[in-house]
Amino acid sequence: MKFVSAVQKGDHFIGMVKEDAVINVSALAASLGIVIPQTLLEGIQQGEEFISAVKELVNQEKAEDFTVSLEEVQLLAPIPRPSKNVFCIGKNYRDHAIEMGSEADIPEDIMVFSKAPTAVIGHGEGIPSHANITEQMDYEGELALVIGKTGTGITKEDAMDHVFGYTIINDITARDLQQKHKQFLLGKSLNGTCPMGPWIVHHSEISNPENLAIETKVNGELRQKGNTSDFIFDIRTMIAELSKGMTLEAGDIIATGTPAGVGKGMKPPVFLKRGDTIEITIEGIGTLRNEIVE
Amino acid sequence: MKFVSAVQKGDHFIGMVKEDAVINVSALAASLGIVIPQTLLEGIQQGEEFISAVKELVNQEKAEDFTVSLEEVQLLAPIPRPSKNVFCIGKNYRDHAIEMGSEADIPEDIMVFSKAPTAVIGHGEGIPSHANITEQMDYEGELALVIGKTGTGITKEDAMDHVFGYTIINDITARDLQQKHKQFLLGKSLNGTCPMGPWIVHHSEISNPENLAIETKVNGELRQKGNTSDFIFDIRTMIAELSKGMTLEAGDIIATGTPAGVGKGMKPPVFLKRGDTIEITIEGIGTLRNEIVE
Repeated sequence: MKFVSAVQKGDHFIGMVKEDAVINVSALAASLGIVIPQTLLEGIQQGEEFISAVKELVNQEKAEDFTVSLEEVQLLAPIPRPSKNVFCIGKNYRDHAIEMGSEADIPEDIMVFSKAPTAVIGHGEGIPSHANITEQMDYEGELALVIGKTGTGITKEDAMDHVFGYTIINDITARDLQQKHKQFLLGKSLNGTCPMGPWIVHHSEISNPENLAIETKVNGELRQKGNTSDFIFDIRTMIAELSKGMTLEAGDIIATGTPAGVGKGMKPPVFLKRGDTIEITIEGIGTLRNEIVE
Repeated sequence: MKFVSAVQKGDHFIGMVKEDAVINVSALAASLGIVIPQTLLEGIQQGEEFISAVKELVNQEKAEDFTVSLEEVQLLAPIPRPSKNVFCIGKNYRDHAIEMGSEADIPEDIMVFSKAPTAVIGHGEGIPSHANITEQMDYEGELALVIGKTGTGITKEDAMDHVFGYTIINDITARDLQQKHKQFLLGKSLNGTCPMGPWIVHHSEISNPENLAIETKVNGELRQKGNTSDFIFDIRTMIAELSKGMTLEAGDIIATGTPAGVGKGMKPPVFLKRGDTIEITIEGIGTLRNEIVE
């Protein structure tokens, strides 16, 4: 099950992607007089009831009448406006930690920072260059978890029960601001610097989220080639550590860190510029593509 | 004008404080058939229209019928659930930066981190001790700005037009987690570690927010005694820097940093323990009081 938030002819809807098509679940439900949440975030917050309702809806014969080509709709970020900042795990791949400095940069304890929710954009949307603010815009391809069940003090054993599904985040970073302001927030939160999508794949379709190939291309050139099997802190640890005394809520998003190959790690460093297209592909999920504009 | 979010007999309402009493503006409006936003956050997002409506309402003769003693209501945080993380300015007073390390810790550029919105509690609510997670719970008394007008790239000249009002935040910090995880988010986001309130004072009542005495007492003992005139980065700078490429939205909250005198700065350091009461008093605003519980 691939959940999307999308727009067609001005109408926002929750959709389910099947190959190159999308079922407008919101319109389908309405036509049958069935009430479902208005947004995917609200659906995720509702939990199992929502998932069952969607499963039933897409199996209705009538579903065909509400199926359109993916090309006919505009995809939004699956959660266009998270209800808090997006959590991000810093330096969660050894080789990336090293390229950002040295072996000494490999964290002994999990490092967590955040991106403001105003930074979120969808697949295909333009990333502003912010050329008057930063000269060092960089990409970071990342697997993102979407939390499906609220909890505090979640144990590692229970952690996977709290995952709704998986998506892709491009943790676009203004390296100069990241460095200048010490704490990462400002360098990570410029408008449009959190491309997310193209959809959320339900956890039931990803048998092992810790063995997914992840690749980032810039203008078709392969820059990052990693695998989530190289996480320093695995998903169970992330969820257990974040929820220690801090409630993780349904709808929360955790970007899990980026493998080696960012622009800042190149010799000499190469940063993004207007017109560059970044494509992040994660096995079993899909490809998130965005261009630097303006 | 002192805006509160409060509960009386199970009903949540927007209130206006007058001396020791509070006018239940929500009930007053309803009795007159006037529609106002349901929450203070929504009111702030609505802007001038909301402020005018409230001003008119509290001047109605009928307002008296909806006035109760402050003691009869439970105050919530004025914004119990912010729509994103609370922005916090790090090390914004020289003496505090020095007590946390040395002269070298005085920042050259503004440092911004965040607290998860799940950490917010109101005046009088208990702060969990999190004794199984941290041994170094510390207080930080801070003036907090509440943004009233959305903007991006706000100039210093325009900055004050974007302030709705002022409140108090106790930026409770788990020093061990703050240090261990390098980025501050986890050490700053434990549940209940963002006491806020008791109310938001409208900007029209604070002639100079950069000349306010601020004091923190623990169990009646004076620990912090500062003045917002000692900000390293002033309010105009905060708003200009944060909104550079990142949209600041109505309802956003910025905790402006803490003066010297935190527990970690004492020799030897003294941390908070169950039963401790922290009172933060800011001139022209009031006193925020919370106890460490559990």
